[in-house]
Amino acid sequence: MAGPVRITGARITPVAFDDPPLLNAVGIHEPYALRAVIQLDTDAGLVGLGETYADEGHLRRLNAAAGVLAGQDVFALNGMYRAVADVLGGDTGSDGHGLTGMITTSGTVDRVFSPFEVACLDVQGKILGRPVSDLLGGAVRDTVPFSAYLFYKWAAHPGRGADSWGEALDPDGIVTQARRMVGDYGFTAIKLKGGVFAPEQEIEAVRALRAEFPGHPLRIDPNAAWTVPTSLHVAKELDGIIEYLEDPTPGLDGMAEVARQAPMPLATNMCVVAFDEIAPAVARGSVSVVLSDHHYWGGLARSKLLSGICDTFGLGLSMHSNSHLGISLAAMVQLAAATPNLTYACDTHWPWKTQDVIAPGTFTFRGGSVAVPAGPGLGVELDEDALAALAELYLSCGLRNRDDTGYRQSIEPGFVKRTW
Amino acid sequence: MAGPVRITGARITPVAFDDPPLLNAVGIHEPYALRAVIQLDTDAGLVGLGETYADEGHLRRLNAAAGVLAGQDVFALNGMYRAVADVLGGDTGSDGHGLTGMITTSGTVDRVFSPFEVACLDVQGKILGRPVSDLLGGAVRDTVPFSAYLFYKWAAHPGRGADSWGEALDPDGIVTQARRMVGDYGFTAIKLKGGVFAPEQEIEAVRALRAEFPGHPLRIDPNAAWTVPTSLHVAKELDGIIEYLEDPTPGLDGMAEVARQAPMPLATNMCVVAFDEIAPAVARGSVSVVLSDHHYWGGLARSKLLSGICDTFGLGLSMHSNSHLGISLAAMVQLAAATPNLTYACDTHWPWKTQDVIAPGTFTFRGGSVAVPAGPGLGVELDEDALAALAELYLSCGLRNRDDTGYRQSIEPGFVKRTW
Repeated sequence: MAGPVRITGARITPVAFDDPPLLNAVGIHEPYALRAVIQLDTDAGLVGLGETYADEGHLRRLNAAAGVLAGQDVFALNGMYRAVADVLGGDTGSDGHGLTGMITTSGTVDRVFSPFEVACLDVQGKILGRPVSDLLGGAVRDTVPFSAYLFYKWAAHPGRGADSWGEALDPDGIVTQARRMVGDYGFTAIKLKGGVFAPEQEIEAVRALRAEFPGHPLRIDPNAAWTVPTSLHVAKELDGIIEYLEDPTPGLDGMAEVARQAPMPLATNMCVVAFDEIAPAVARGSVSVVLSDHHYWGGLARSKLLSGICDTFGLGLSMHSNSHLGISLAAMVQLAAATPNLTYACDTHWPWKTQDVIAPGTFTFRGGSVAVPAGPGLGVELDEDALAALAELYLSCGLRNRDDTGYRQSIEPGFVKRTW
Repeated sequence: MAGPVRITGARITPVAFDDPPLLNAVGIHEPYALRAVIQLDTDAGLVGLGETYADEGHLRRLNAAAGVLAGQDVFALNGMYRAVADVLGGDTGSDGHGLTGMITTSGTVDRVFSPFEVACLDVQGKILGRPVSDLLGGAVRDTVPFSAYLFYKWAAHPGRGADSWGEALDPDGIVTQARRMVGDYGFTAIKLKGGVFAPEQEIEAVRALRAEFPGHPLRIDPNAAWTVPTSLHVAKELDGIIEYLEDPTPGLDGMAEVARQAPMPLATNMCVVAFDEIAPAVARGSVSVVLSDHHYWGGLARSKLLSGICDTFGLGLSMHSNSHLGISLAAMVQLAAATPNLTYACDTHWPWKTQDVIAPGTFTFRGGSVAVPAGPGLGVELDEDALAALAELYLSCGLRNRDDTGYRQSIEPGFVKRTW
């Protein structure tokens, strides 16, 4: 198969899957999370898989990109990136990007290009009969460690049956949740999504986690819900307890102010989410750790670039997660395996979902880690029936854009995003 | 060929080839330039090619690296890099790196790893039946433009016959040299190696080039032979005439001082030659353009990382050259083709040599550019007879380390490297 392998088209299928009522600073997860599955068809008969957000504006842009990728060779990624940039023109992508208003500055071209790049790498790997990690310099680890991702949550979405996790609205609830998650998956690091309650309660929850899990690295992420003084207060209270403090406060300047006095590293997936934000962050000393995410950093090769930049500028590297399915996990694992300086356990929402579009059995968490799939490409296989079912759920569920704030306000009309 | 393709060994052959008496700030090119040719053998029978320096210390390190690479899969580049770093330990590589004392801070691991990485990519391309550029994101240009590389020179090495280029010791000589080089190769950009004569004469030479070639972008590179005030004087005199001023003065601080006042961009292949020099250079604003060189930036993938860093931090990108043969040109061209932000014409010493180790006919300069070889891997074939002849020349010529200063002093005992 030495000649070009040309893209003949892309099937872009929005899907929905059940999502528990997980609380965050801007609201609460809706009953369904939305994703788009990309099946990239080629004239060699090989099909590449990708997964991304499914908000309406994003779907529109994905379709525009797919139009200019037809006819391209699957190795011509530099040219494809330029073609996607050209077709999107000056589109800033501010309407709907699946990140619920918490990340507004990620690069539109990178966000739209990403799933196609992943799908091309999947095809490349299938041509070679090798895992995608081999196309990224080769795996330096056989398994990739993830972090338990704890959320304050309600017992159930209003009017619907309770999920199996139950309520978690205080430190006890969080510790109970953590016990199950660590018990079921073996996670050796723990992250708490904060910014939901007053900082004193969240400090108490982290301390309770420390008491219960004395050896686990801990993190808290309030999604920039705190002022600089509050951030510094929490930082002081959690000194020696958390491995990094994630996005305590908004903006490069606020983060820099906290960073100058906080005793632990600051991490971000909010104030550095695009390549043009790196230089200002470095100049200000805003963060010590960047959470990469191939979904908005332009795919796996550009996430490798981000990792090289972090290595070059003395920044640590971790990995961010949104609610995702198995194609995304495969891409995350292939990338993480081939990124030597990714030394923190990655985030994943994996335990919170009960459905998927990939054939079951590929990923099993042992000791909090999953093995890098050894099969060609991403190493996952699409389950066509499952895809059809979740595509049907997308059509019937009525959700078209993620809106954690609006959903919570529909239940609690007085809810407003707070800053502590 | 879906299983691993393992390295079985590396044949490292030092070669010598005739080099004209080209002058620079530290001395003069010796009668022979030294290079090492790497033939990387694999259990699939495919052989990968690489080319690098051949100074004795470097050869010793190449052999140490080859020892730890045997048995590795040709796609396991991340692991190989770590293995090379491990075997070199704290070796700073200060003895002999083929760069004649002008670049002393390049990374030893990157310099030693580079030719093996290139050879692995050559094998990868051969496995795929695709050019190396496809492994770097795909070519964005079919031809790669190079710059004419002018040198002050003597008519002949003492005691040897004259070469075909004749003497060039004043502006007229430089213009004559440029006429032939542009005439024969069609170069559309011109670089003058300076730091040889007093700045006023070199300014005059650049002005003479401008008069003769009104449309060609011009550059001058005195290899840091000037003080800050001299650099600023030259910058003022050549305002509007040169596209960038290359390494006028030594060090990040000196360059930053010049950069603050010079009207044109400053470029470097001396003060930013390793990844750990990038952050300090960015912080100081020392340079606007980095000349990449895969021979000391750790190979083609890490040169792509450098290009991504330059793009991210608003730095321009050009390409440096040492005296080299066809394997290096192939690697330079594959890299340049797949590097979208490499927008300056690259340097090459190509016209100054009369011998090679590759089969002739692959590279023809048209309009100053060469076509990207379309064949698998690097797209060049080793000429075993030519390799044997240049290996014999290495053995008989007696040179074992590059020493432009010592050679010039052997002819002119009073010569010392000057600073103007």
